[in-house]
Amino acid sequence: MSESTPVERVVIIGAGFGGLTCARELVKKGGFSVTVIDRHPYQLFAPLLYQVATGGLPEDDIAYPVRAAIPGVDFRRGDVVHVNPDSKTVRLADGHVVEFDRLVLAMGSTGTTYGIPGVDEHALQMKDIKQARAIKNSLLQKYEDVEIGLAPKESLRVVVVGGGPTGVEVTGAVAELQRSMKREFPKISKHASVTLVEAAPRLLMPFSEKSSARAKSDLEALGATVKLEAAVDRMYSSDVHLKSGEVLPAGTIVWAAGVAAPPEWAVLGLTDRANRLIVSPTLELTKNVWALGDLAHVDGGEGRPLPMVASVAMQQGRYLADAFERSRKGEAIKPFKYKDKGQMATIGRRRAVVEMPNGWRLSGTVAWLSWLGLHVFYLAGGRNRVSVVADWFWNYVAWGIGPRRTVID
Amino acid sequence: MSESTPVERVVIIGAGFGGLTCARELVKKGGFSVTVIDRHPYQLFAPLLYQVATGGLPEDDIAYPVRAAIPGVDFRRGDVVHVNPDSKTVRLADGHVVEFDRLVLAMGSTGTTYGIPGVDEHALQMKDIKQARAIKNSLLQKYEDVEIGLAPKESLRVVVVGGGPTGVEVTGAVAELQRSMKREFPKISKHASVTLVEAAPRLLMPFSEKSSARAKSDLEALGATVKLEAAVDRMYSSDVHLKSGEVLPAGTIVWAAGVAAPPEWAVLGLTDRANRLIVSPTLELTKNVWALGDLAHVDGGEGRPLPMVASVAMQQGRYLADAFERSRKGEAIKPFKYKDKGQMATIGRRRAVVEMPNGWRLSGTVAWLSWLGLHVFYLAGGRNRVSVVADWFWNYVAWGIGPRRTVID
Repeated sequence: MSESTPVERVVIIGAGFGGLTCARELVKKGGFSVTVIDRHPYQLFAPLLYQVATGGLPEDDIAYPVRAAIPGVDFRRGDVVHVNPDSKTVRLADGHVVEFDRLVLAMGSTGTTYGIPGVDEHALQMKDIKQARAIKNSLLQKYEDVEIGLAPKESLRVVVVGGGPTGVEVTGAVAELQRSMKREFPKISKHASVTLVEAAPRLLMPFSEKSSARAKSDLEALGATVKLEAAVDRMYSSDVHLKSGEVLPAGTIVWAAGVAAPPEWAVLGLTDRANRLIVSPTLELTKNVWALGDLAHVDGGEGRPLPMVASVAMQQGRYLADAFERSRKGEAIKPFKYKDKGQMATIGRRRAVVEMPNGWRLSGTVAWLSWLGLHVFYLAGGRNRVSVVADWFWNYVAWGIGPRRTVID
Repeated sequence: MSESTPVERVVIIGAGFGGLTCARELVKKGGFSVTVIDRHPYQLFAPLLYQVATGGLPEDDIAYPVRAAIPGVDFRRGDVVHVNPDSKTVRLADGHVVEFDRLVLAMGSTGTTYGIPGVDEHALQMKDIKQARAIKNSLLQKYEDVEIGLAPKESLRVVVVGGGPTGVEVTGAVAELQRSMKREFPKISKHASVTLVEAAPRLLMPFSEKSSARAKSDLEALGATVKLEAAVDRMYSSDVHLKSGEVLPAGTIVWAAGVAAPPEWAVLGLTDRANRLIVSPTLELTKNVWALGDLAHVDGGEGRPLPMVASVAMQQGRYLADAFERSRKGEAIKPFKYKDKGQMATIGRRRAVVEMPNGWRLSGTVAWLSWLGLHVFYLAGGRNRVSVVADWFWNYVAWGIGPRRTVID
């Protein structure tokens, strides 16, 4: 970079995989002053939220302090209430105004109910730590309540809606939790069950049919029930009604069916059906503003947007840091191109399905180990986080969920 | 036990060190049907609460599910609202009535403010997980607030009131936390400080003068300020007023000065000044009712009651299980006799003071290692809990507090 080039102020809203990758890369390149804004002071390791929700990991293991993660970056905790691309300012709820030369929107996604009646009121979502804590407390508290007759035995039934990776993972983990609760609640445990409900004809739609079938049989081997082509019509506090007329009693309903970008910008007409901001092939939304990750709709070929997964967000974060540097140097910028890293879903504590972009498929324990080895290490990255990964491994493999399962409210 | 002896129903209120030890021993002996009642479904490992309060350990590490801890015991989660020794019943807040042949009161202690104005409103206590979480969130949130100008720099000052083991431990841990925050908040960290305030002329009054002096100099080496003969007059939201007239600004005030039994029974005239129930030398309170641990006032010689520490409670739990069996067999029961196990306090991550009953004194790292090795292993006990101890060790020693320090609210 030439000495005359001024330092550019890049503001990134959202401390997720995409935003933090972008921030880290910009600091490495130098010549940028980088500010990250998020309402939480930690990066949430969302792929393991289901572990917190089922008592497998403590909350602290999946919340990594942002400041420690990105030295050299200015972090601000706050809620953005207004973005002005013309004056190049961002206003926070606490009244502070932050100026930028370039703004990156990286706020990720949130749960969506598709307007199905009762979901908002009765289902537990799983997009942040509070929600995961609520699921864990509900799962465990029902045992206490049923044991002393405060709740009917049907309360021990769990219904999970949504057969994507999250739904499959939480179902497997609940099945294992229920199995391990038998020792503590021998009298009532036989009433516990978990049912996964999916509207499509198979689980894990983006995977191959073979992997879908394997996920289903693995879940069934753990004691879960899988209902396919089962669309939810409505739900109440203690049951889920399917469109077929079938009623599933449930003490805990987990909603893992819908993911969408936050609805704030839908009114601007800049979004797709999932509220994702439709950006240019270089991820530009409007002058001086870019978007990445779950929030951004980028064409992935065959008319479908790229999936809402961490590896897309991280590649886009790296891409934008590169693009900003090129732009400062006056170099041409090529469109973003996603390099498929494959996909994985874990089923319980020892099984997974993995599909590599080259067509390789793994399942069972080998797949699970590769999930642990590749996926987690790859996502975590960075010297500091090796300790967190080691801790996960320790908690997860060596000691199991035994000593962790308790309601802390 | 003869075959004609009926099974005795023992109900234990409180799942702390004393209550659970008693329950476990009774189950081992056989011939008793044991019920434990507690408002939380977990045993709190209170000696490490200060670690949770300062971000060193996740909450889950010090909350062990009761049911897993004591197989063979009937556990009920609930609040006891009434005890009737005549009808031999206990009533819970949810309306359930539990019958007993023998009742053991083992509810432990709570914080007390000695009526000092402002303590209730402005100081954070540290007797349960919620309180520890509040301290941690306050300590960390102040950095965020000061960094963006939402709070004055004095908010980074911490005042700890009470120079007993808990106050010393939390002060040392806060000093280390502040030291490690320098990397994340380089601009403002110089304003952080921690002051320990104690009304007596030295810290750790029950220890020798040498250990007291060592604790003070160890704390000072960590950067803490220690104020002796400094009695608190009153406090407000952002400062602590001493009787000397000195005012200590503080963003976080931790109250570690007073411990007392719950006040419920004080009206009966059965208690001492600390609300402890005055029991007979065999721990009997009244017909069919016994008390143990922090809740029970047992003469420890020289007119002073035994200290409120876990080892007293555990020995009393074991003693009562023994006494109940002897009583069933018609054997004589000797008074409870405390076997002093020594005392320890840790100062930061690598130092401690230890005093053994034989007069041995340890300090520094050797003492700290013996704290870890003896105290923790001794208190934890049991096959299952080895895993928790290993986990503590892992979290505490191998990885440090780095990746854990974040506000999760």
